[in-house]
Amino acid sequence: MKIIVIGGTGTIGSAVIKRLASRHEVISVGHSSGDFQVDITEIESIEKMYQSIGQFDGLISTTGKVHFGPLMEMKSAQYQQGLASKLMGQVNLVLAGLEYINDNGCFTLTSGILNRDPIVLGSSAAMVNGAIDGFVTSAAIEMPRGIRINSVSPTVIEESMPNYEAFFRGFKPVSAMEAAMAFEKSIEGKQTGKVYYVD
Amino acid sequence: MKIIVIGGTGTIGSAVIKRLASRHEVISVGHSSGDFQVDITEIESIEKMYQSIGQFDGLISTTGKVHFGPLMEMKSAQYQQGLASKLMGQVNLVLAGLEYINDNGCFTLTSGILNRDPIVLGSSAAMVNGAIDGFVTSAAIEMPRGIRINSVSPTVIEESMPNYEAFFRGFKPVSAMEAAMAFEKSIEGKQTGKVYYVD
Repeated sequence: MKIIVIGGTGTIGSAVIKRLASRHEVISVGHSSGDFQVDITEIESIEKMYQSIGQFDGLISTTGKVHFGPLMEMKSAQYQQGLASKLMGQVNLVLAGLEYINDNGCFTLTSGILNRDPIVLGSSAAMVNGAIDGFVTSAAIEMPRGIRINSVSPTVIEESMPNYEAFFRGFKPVSAMEAAMAFEKSIEGKQTGKVYYVD
Repeated sequence: MKIIVIGGTGTIGSAVIKRLASRHEVISVGHSSGDFQVDITEIESIEKMYQSIGQFDGLISTTGKVHFGPLMEMKSAQYQQGLASKLMGQVNLVLAGLEYINDNGCFTLTSGILNRDPIVLGSSAAMVNGAIDGFVTSAAIEMPRGIRINSVSPTVIEESMPNYEAFFRGFKPVSAMEAAMAFEKSIEGKQTGKVYYVD
């Protein structure tokens, strides 16, 4: 299969590529590195990426930013960052990708644990993760041509713990490779409308 | 307690007021009716409402719009309607309300069933409902001064079935009064960070 990995140079994305590359044609897309570049907050940038890559079978997105900050200091504008990037950036990858994805193809987005197991500073991440999981659950039942869609909702990643452990005390991390297995299951299995919890 | 009900003239909101009015001072707020008016998509309008009403103990929101349409015809702009109204409209009621709510007060927002049990045309509602439930779950752990926050996630409402039954075949409706009981439990109980499912 021809599989696009957005965020392919990141911690999870590069683990995903490692698991898939021996069996599939994998195209790594980054913000400023990778085989192709995309800014997922710009619909024109997404369109241009798909025009360059052409038809494909699988889209894995392991990207998207949210603002972390104290609830009492969060304003609408801070929530908008997450809504524009991690939420609508990923959703627009799906909407625009529907014109290029082959029959029986699969989209797999990334949400995360924080709407199920919240931390201080994480209200925007919790909002966005819940939105992604809700979108995927619903979009699955309207996908045409046998196309599937799932999300992967991982807890904190072991390789990122040095940067984040102060915010995730007591959270049992998973390795990037464990998270990558959920993307592999989504792409190579046949389930749809599923949220894969990795924690 | 002094309780503000946004959407107080709607199907669920008026049932909420019916349950609460004998024990509490209830202020009904609508878009163009009620004791006060607010446009929840405008932060200035929300601020003006709180300035007019002053300190309060409970805020119940039973309002917010989303666009219903086929996934294959949905564009980013259609999703933005739900993000601006039902999601950020309700979230901004909380953020701005934190300056006016008394110690141990309570916010209760409305999400809905469609992120858990999706229907065709409902991908925006599913996105927004998941976002609201995620936000509430996380915001609860950062609330100051004993303030609480919950959401109510009802299935389709019996009184609205004549308008919506073609979209909700096989869904067992609940009465507006049953949905109102969840708001009553949120306000008069002591739980926080809870999503009350009414289905």
